[in-house]
Amino acid sequence: MVINAMERIMKELLDEYKHGLHIKCTCSECMDDILALSLNQTKPRYVTNIDKVMYVKAEFIDKQEMTTLLVKLAECAKLVSDKPLCQTQGV
Amino acid sequence: MVINAMERIMKELLDEYKHGLHIKCTCSECMDDILALSLNQTKPRYVTNIDKVMYVKAEFIDKQEMTTLLVKLAECAKLVSDKPLCQTQGV
Repeated sequence: MVINAMERIMKELLDEYKHGLHIKCTCSECMDDILALSLNQTKPRYVTNIDKVMYVKAEFIDKQEMTTLLVKLAECAKLVSDKPLCQTQGV
Repeated sequence: MVINAMERIMKELLDEYKHGLHIKCTCSECMDDILALSLNQTKPRYVTNIDKVMYVKAEFIDKQEMTTLLVKLAECAKLVSDKPLCQTQGV
């Protein structure tokens, strides 16, 4: 089993800042689109067991590192908000 | 749900070439270590549903792209083979 620790970190960040990011549609489709877009711009940090995710997380306690992730998330949230692909809002 | 298509692609490649790569120990721990190491050097390609993995896979039909992945896998297989961390062979 391999896990990309960044998947967990980004998902928690998105859940935490969802409201602060003024995302127009917070349906699961849009949340997945934002997550996929931001993960595709983030260096993967694969570990081989769930306990090791914590060690990667610890590196992001550093304000600067966390801010970089949040900026990426905000950019992707804007992209999806501007052009949502989901059924509720989408094309 | 988000999935890194490269996880599937690399896993299939490892299963296919496992014997050709002359990996000393093919226990699940060593296979995971090789997979995690190679995925950490590969640009992630997250998609939001399993059907889309196929579109990413199609890009790797190109010999050159596939060879690049295989070289990465072989390098990581050597790293793990030289210093296995698993119980069967490890430190």
